[in-house]
Amino acid sequence: MEEIKNYIEANKDRFLEELFGLIRIPSISSDTSRKEDMLKAAQYWKDSLMKAGAAKAEIFATEGNPVVYGELIIDPAKSTVLVYAHYDVMPVDPVELWNSPPFEPEIRDGKIFARGADDDKGQSFMQAKAFEYLVKSGKLPCNVKFMIEGEEEIGSAHLGKFCDDYKDMLKADIILVSDTSMIAPDIPSITSGLRGLSYMEVEVTGPNKDLHSGLFGGAVANPANILVDLIASLKDGKQRITIPGFYDDVLELSMEERQKMAKAPFNLEAYKKALDIDEVCGEEGYTTPERTGIRPTLDINGIWGGYTGEGAKTVIPSKAWAKISMRLVPNQDHKKISKLFEDHFKAIAPPYVKVKVTALHGGQGYVSPTDMPAYKAAEKAYEKAFGKIPVPVRSGGSIPIISTFEEKLGIKSILMGFGLESDAIHSPNENFPLGQFFKGIETIVYFYQFFAEAHHA
Amino acid sequence: MEEIKNYIEANKDRFLEELFGLIRIPSISSDTSRKEDMLKAAQYWKDSLMKAGAAKAEIFATEGNPVVYGELIIDPAKSTVLVYAHYDVMPVDPVELWNSPPFEPEIRDGKIFARGADDDKGQSFMQAKAFEYLVKSGKLPCNVKFMIEGEEEIGSAHLGKFCDDYKDMLKADIILVSDTSMIAPDIPSITSGLRGLSYMEVEVTGPNKDLHSGLFGGAVANPANILVDLIASLKDGKQRITIPGFYDDVLELSMEERQKMAKAPFNLEAYKKALDIDEVCGEEGYTTPERTGIRPTLDINGIWGGYTGEGAKTVIPSKAWAKISMRLVPNQDHKKISKLFEDHFKAIAPPYVKVKVTALHGGQGYVSPTDMPAYKAAEKAYEKAFGKIPVPVRSGGSIPIISTFEEKLGIKSILMGFGLESDAIHSPNENFPLGQFFKGIETIVYFYQFFAEAHHA
Repeated sequence: MEEIKNYIEANKDRFLEELFGLIRIPSISSDTSRKEDMLKAAQYWKDSLMKAGAAKAEIFATEGNPVVYGELIIDPAKSTVLVYAHYDVMPVDPVELWNSPPFEPEIRDGKIFARGADDDKGQSFMQAKAFEYLVKSGKLPCNVKFMIEGEEEIGSAHLGKFCDDYKDMLKADIILVSDTSMIAPDIPSITSGLRGLSYMEVEVTGPNKDLHSGLFGGAVANPANILVDLIASLKDGKQRITIPGFYDDVLELSMEERQKMAKAPFNLEAYKKALDIDEVCGEEGYTTPERTGIRPTLDINGIWGGYTGEGAKTVIPSKAWAKISMRLVPNQDHKKISKLFEDHFKAIAPPYVKVKVTALHGGQGYVSPTDMPAYKAAEKAYEKAFGKIPVPVRSGGSIPIISTFEEKLGIKSILMGFGLESDAIHSPNENFPLGQFFKGIETIVYFYQFFAEAHHA
Repeated sequence: MEEIKNYIEANKDRFLEELFGLIRIPSISSDTSRKEDMLKAAQYWKDSLMKAGAAKAEIFATEGNPVVYGELIIDPAKSTVLVYAHYDVMPVDPVELWNSPPFEPEIRDGKIFARGADDDKGQSFMQAKAFEYLVKSGKLPCNVKFMIEGEEEIGSAHLGKFCDDYKDMLKADIILVSDTSMIAPDIPSITSGLRGLSYMEVEVTGPNKDLHSGLFGGAVANPANILVDLIASLKDGKQRITIPGFYDDVLELSMEERQKMAKAPFNLEAYKKALDIDEVCGEEGYTTPERTGIRPTLDINGIWGGYTGEGAKTVIPSKAWAKISMRLVPNQDHKKISKLFEDHFKAIAPPYVKVKVTALHGGQGYVSPTDMPAYKAAEKAYEKAFGKIPVPVRSGGSIPIISTFEEKLGIKSILMGFGLESDAIHSPNENFPLGQFFKGIETIVYFYQFFAEAHHA
């Protein structure tokens, strides 16, 4: 079983060069001016799959960005793994905080620095390379399908329909996803749950034009002040969300379950030090891992209004805005929560402003059973590659499409992520350690072998 | 006394062309890349004063933008009027809301549309043209000095020192300023008081980098959420400012004074309609004119942090900022208030964020006694030009330098403004009605005559 390690060693420069080619395409899905880059990235994936050994690969147009589909069916009687990944990336601002240009990958201190280095170009490319090895070495033990989309970072709006339209083509026994993290390079973990998401934008309008704050200040509602009043009221002093009905569907974990969770390694001092904060802050009565793992929350993702340039401008803005998202736990329905938010925000808005509330995107939470064969196979694969049994972790993040897969295709997903907390995904200086990249390829190869064994046993 | 009207009629196109030349220089003082334009605007004023009839005019360098000084001394024994104005203007963003380019003046519906059309290029140019008429017609009854600065919109940081340095040169009996508004074209008014200003910027820092809101949301303080909590807490449910000591020096007006003030015409329905708001909002227990005239207030002038682009980015920002200004009433000291704000903001900041508080600028309030000779002369001038005795009005705005003049030079100011509320100063589509511009020139000419008469009587 050394062979995969030798293969990686012999091909590492080429693997990186191929990955860098993908990274260099600035496929920011939230930027509608990037349509051509989205297509380029899809084309790059199609070519990569064919070169890796797929029997066919196609680019499917959708009403949004295209989906790349590829497959290699070695024997219809054998089990099938459907690899899901995304070729789109997050925006790069504030771009001035990057130490190297976000779309020119650079290796420093044993890490790849670039937008998408981890999320999800680096991680998804491990899938392509593990597949390549299995094909070239003649050791592929099952059928493989790939579905690579270009709208994950903006809510996968068109992938649900794609699943409906191509349900037969997408038939598989398990969906394999590398788009999550593990605890540390020496503490492997598998994401066994994901939070759902409800992402809203609010607009508060006061006077019909910007006003001089001297002439009008104190007499006319300032929409920026009203916005901060409204948002501040959405949480109470215990950091609990005040939207009526928000917690109705949250399943409380038993003390026993919480005690089991508490056994996962977590070092609060190291956590605070890594973020350079003196204190953590979250819902009263829960630990930090519980706050992200089993509790919902509400965050401002962006806020803006008025004069934000250099110096002082004495203005009362006509409008102020915020992007506010809520992370949900399994059993909370994102559509219901978005509606509760909208109704509540409108209800608490005072009569001297107008408010507009828009749901930008959302998705359900997901739980991956730790007793399913794919989980067991992943567990063995991590143990073999990392030398330790991986810890199951409920992640605070969301991959809304995962629950959609279960709903539309009836297929469970296994989340084999190799990212690290320090990878700064969605932030300036996103990075991915080379060690994780290569070890990930190795782990995925082992997964295929254990999964096929279990399935065909 | 028809002569001034004839002179205006005969020269109106030239007056406008000359004003437009000044307006076309984008002298935005808060934009440090505009240093050359500031100098150009100063040069334009120097030339304008010489052409209008000044005996000399000079550009004085300061540590900031230059000050233009010009004078015509007809007889040292006669009284002297010192005209103060500013050639700098406010920024123009959001520039997309302008119906015509802000620095290309355009006449529509009898109004000049441009940044600075009113504040203060249009208003200050009336002073130049009234002076020109008096010189050319041989009717100038007193000495005149001009002091035109380029930093009014950013707090006149270097004019105090200029006053110290050139106290002798600036000697005068009254400072004449056209940089305020009147109630309506048919309701002349004179600003008899100005509010002070304390303008702060706050920065709240949470984690040392932007974080993924899924992985960290709920466990780490979001600086944008903390910022809104902190700002929301600065006012209570009655719209009273909660900063300890904030109201200590506010002079409460007697019921009698308030009743007198209430006689000034004010139409709440028209006010709301003009701003397109359903309700006004302000400190409980005070009317709208009182809220801007005799009460201090606190407003967000700008707020920003996180992702503000198109679509959804699931980020917890590392930092969030706000510009917050307080309008003060006479007897409140802006330095004391800035300090109270800073101390309070730091005191209420929770331990899981770091806050930075900067005082960006400030100035004291001012009261113009309605019984001083200059006020009486202005009153007669407005009555003669507009046919009605002007109403004294306590303005909500601030011209911080006015109280500095009193302190440094020992000279009172008379605020003969001709702006209208609809001029949208500091906003997109700033404008100034041609009627006000020409009527203003006429009124200023009358002022000189009444003032000299009273003074030499």
